[in-house]
Amino acid sequence: MIVIDTLAIFAPGLLGASVARAAKARGAARRVIIWARRPEVRLALADQPWCDEVVDSAESAAKAANLVVIASPVTRIGELVERIAPHLTAGTIVTDVGSVKADICRQASSSLSSTAATFIGSHPMAGSEKTGWENGDAKLFDGRTCFVTPTENDDDVAVETVVRLWRDLGSEVVTVSADQHDEIVAHISHLPQIVATNLGTLLDQRPAKWSHLAGNGLKDTTRIAASDSTMWVEILEQNRDEILRALQGFEDDLHHFRAALANRDWPELRTRLERGKSWRDSLRP
Amino acid sequence: MIVIDTLAIFAPGLLGASVARAAKARGAARRVIIWARRPEVRLALADQPWCDEVVDSAESAAKAANLVVIASPVTRIGELVERIAPHLTAGTIVTDVGSVKADICRQASSSLSSTAATFIGSHPMAGSEKTGWENGDAKLFDGRTCFVTPTENDDDVAVETVVRLWRDLGSEVVTVSADQHDEIVAHISHLPQIVATNLGTLLDQRPAKWSHLAGNGLKDTTRIAASDSTMWVEILEQNRDEILRALQGFEDDLHHFRAALANRDWPELRTRLERGKSWRDSLRP
Repeated sequence: MIVIDTLAIFAPGLLGASVARAAKARGAARRVIIWARRPEVRLALADQPWCDEVVDSAESAAKAANLVVIASPVTRIGELVERIAPHLTAGTIVTDVGSVKADICRQASSSLSSTAATFIGSHPMAGSEKTGWENGDAKLFDGRTCFVTPTENDDDVAVETVVRLWRDLGSEVVTVSADQHDEIVAHISHLPQIVATNLGTLLDQRPAKWSHLAGNGLKDTTRIAASDSTMWVEILEQNRDEILRALQGFEDDLHHFRAALANRDWPELRTRLERGKSWRDSLRP
Repeated sequence: MIVIDTLAIFAPGLLGASVARAAKARGAARRVIIWARRPEVRLALADQPWCDEVVDSAESAAKAANLVVIASPVTRIGELVERIAPHLTAGTIVTDVGSVKADICRQASSSLSSTAATFIGSHPMAGSEKTGWENGDAKLFDGRTCFVTPTENDDDVAVETVVRLWRDLGSEVVTVSADQHDEIVAHISHLPQIVATNLGTLLDQRPAKWSHLAGNGLKDTTRIAASDSTMWVEILEQNRDEILRALQGFEDDLHHFRAALANRDWPELRTRLERGKSWRDSLRP
């Protein structure tokens, strides 16, 4: 493990606080400093044992850092990188935890193009229905996938530093291009969210009593419908094109399934049920 | 608790074996007798401590029983009731554990119309991806919904006996008409299954690696895709009309969601995400 000297975390919510806690717990950084926009959050963070220093301004935090993790909502990442760009010292690496990568990586790399700092995108797949830095957990990343999305032009050492950070925090790191990342998560994360939400909005139009009679099947299938709406509007906004494509694929499958049911094509329905089962059986536990 | 003298279970799988185990564990029946079609299953059941007697023929089991629980696949329930009808003694009550009720209840009531026995439909919502009598569990019904679907013409004492059985086995019993039952489960059970299956068949057409990168959201949303395909073909067959209606409702919601995303109507998407969240937050844990 190469220890990062000063790790700066910007705008910590659930993920940012978990990065701080995990980095301290696992000794991945000598010093963890935090900047938050709201003074009341800064005051509260100053009392946390996993926070070495709270910094009043984003610019000062940027100046002091060797590695910056921007943990803000996806719509704010670009502007934060632009704001701190002139204050970063040479060799500093900036990453983030945003659920969508292509737009953010393009914008951030452009902001840093005239500096000696580097942006490498990250996306730890470790969300939860819980939000807020208070719910941060040093074990949040254990065994979870973390995408790192370098471009071909990125400095190898910078990429390796970011990969190592997430591995040291417990993640299983996968490097892909930002565009491919957005296509993958549209399928494995954004589409399931939309499906769960739409089961919820449909059942919301039926008698409430019905839902209360449901078993664990419905509860599991819709668990993520309880996720934070604000975060999801931002994800939909940032990854609209890939999500529309994934949704089209799902609607096509659903259309074929419904046609088979309408036509009483039981062999076709059996084939589809078996394919769904065999896919699910193959997922690691 | 009024103890049933002889409880006969026909064709036990997961649910039938769980009825037997729970009835013995909770003292709901003095004697549990079982009939199974396959001799090797009868031999294996004879060794189980929760089975007082294995009976070689459905007819003999019917003759000896005060209450019969038919635990066969839904497509076999009607023919089994018809077969045992001439052998039932006066006052015997027959019920089942089928996931669909309208067709079964009509057919079974018609089979028993010229006898002094009564059919009252049941549906304990306590399935699982597991199948087979070997996975039976005395606690399977604890706190789970069990639908009982009497008609207006059914004898009150017979209805109460069936309601009491399921309550004594640990269920929370809800009585509704068979038609309303089928509409409700099309929404809260069959639709989630179809959605999970279709997420599975879509992802099965994408690189397998993608699915292995997924977090718990996808795993939970698709858990029931692993359910038994044969059972689900039968459910689709038995409840086709109600499922087509529920599926239409879901596709309508999904269509509006997609249109809002295509039109960048973020306020509409926020409203839908919030409605889905508020519905999910209101489900009991």
